[in-house]
Amino acid sequence: MIGPNLATMLSLIMTDATLRPTDAQQLLASAVHQSFNAINVDGHTSTNDTVLLLASGQGVPLAGTERAAFSQDLNEVCTDLAKQIVNDGEGATHLVAIEVTGAASDAEARTIAEAIANSPLVKTAIAGNDPNWGRIVSAAGYAGPQIDLTAMELLLNNVPIFRHGTPLEYDAAALSTDLASHREVQIQLRVGTHDGSAKYWTCDLTHGYVTINAEYHT
Amino acid sequence: MIGPNLATMLSLIMTDATLRPTDAQQLLASAVHQSFNAINVDGHTSTNDTVLLLASGQGVPLAGTERAAFSQDLNEVCTDLAKQIVNDGEGATHLVAIEVTGAASDAEARTIAEAIANSPLVKTAIAGNDPNWGRIVSAAGYAGPQIDLTAMELLLNNVPIFRHGTPLEYDAAALSTDLASHREVQIQLRVGTHDGSAKYWTCDLTHGYVTINAEYHT
Repeated sequence: MIGPNLATMLSLIMTDATLRPTDAQQLLASAVHQSFNAINVDGHTSTNDTVLLLASGQGVPLAGTERAAFSQDLNEVCTDLAKQIVNDGEGATHLVAIEVTGAASDAEARTIAEAIANSPLVKTAIAGNDPNWGRIVSAAGYAGPQIDLTAMELLLNNVPIFRHGTPLEYDAAALSTDLASHREVQIQLRVGTHDGSAKYWTCDLTHGYVTINAEYHT
Repeated sequence: MIGPNLATMLSLIMTDATLRPTDAQQLLASAVHQSFNAINVDGHTSTNDTVLLLASGQGVPLAGTERAAFSQDLNEVCTDLAKQIVNDGEGATHLVAIEVTGAASDAEARTIAEAIANSPLVKTAIAGNDPNWGRIVSAAGYAGPQIDLTAMELLLNNVPIFRHGTPLEYDAAALSTDLASHREVQIQLRVGTHDGSAKYWTCDLTHGYVTINAEYHT
């Protein structure tokens, strides 16, 4: 996924906070779910990735609001590290932040976000700075979960380009220029009227990716 | 998948054989499962693909060995058409035939074959004529079904390159030359000692794919 021929992503997070081992495991699992496990470069799972949380603290373990604040901070650290991995993806010229809302559950939102992130057609469109609503919407469509077309809305870099089953009028040339001038691209897709949501990050698919992975020989 | 911006693959198969509508549907569904639904170019499902079987015959519907022979012929026609689609994939320089055997069921074999076919790392390795056993084996590993390492064997264009969890000694340069000199590449992977098997076809991932799909603008 990241650098499968090196097959190693080692993330070591250290804190002086006092945590019970079971708390540390629970908080880390939650943080990893929404960070390291919410990214892809090419969808090919790496074999040897590791995330460790070491807490050196002694004394009374964190609880209540302190535990919640620590959890929040841990999520932010993990998300920042995970985004750096994608941003440094093989040949990447864009970091793509995908947010799906309105799904029947967070899990369904994530399934849709992951399908969009995995689509080579979406990833090449971003590489080409093309506001291609069709590729994003069709990826959401084949992801599996039910989509409510009447509530659907797609924004690319905060510009609405598709709503209620119909592409909108917008300045495509200006949006393409906007995509080209920003490293980070925002895809926001509403798929219904429920509360399920998810964030996922990927990178674009460029000639650089093909060069790196086709020219490398075992 | 094939040409998602045209969003149309129309396959129309006509026969003078006499078939009941329910027989025609059953035979076609079976043939499509192992042909049109056993290929991918990039894993992005097309939106408007259609396969129709029209039987003009009158009289007594086919039964017994005649029906079985018709089914066999229909499978061959569909497989031939499906392979032509992949062979003509965007930027493709290789047609990749994947056969997985030894799985606990045909469905599990298919899941593994599909994971291999969907991996951009496998597809770029083929584009680069690299006998990269690690990418193929790791894709099989993350596919989901149980793998029996002690029974595992991987052949690339009939050359054994990995067996029982260990890469084998072979002439990598000669195999790379062999890959470069054949349009069709054969990946044969044994994953256990059971009877489940599946065939799947894909194409490689080249600079041509990126050019076609990144330079196209809506």
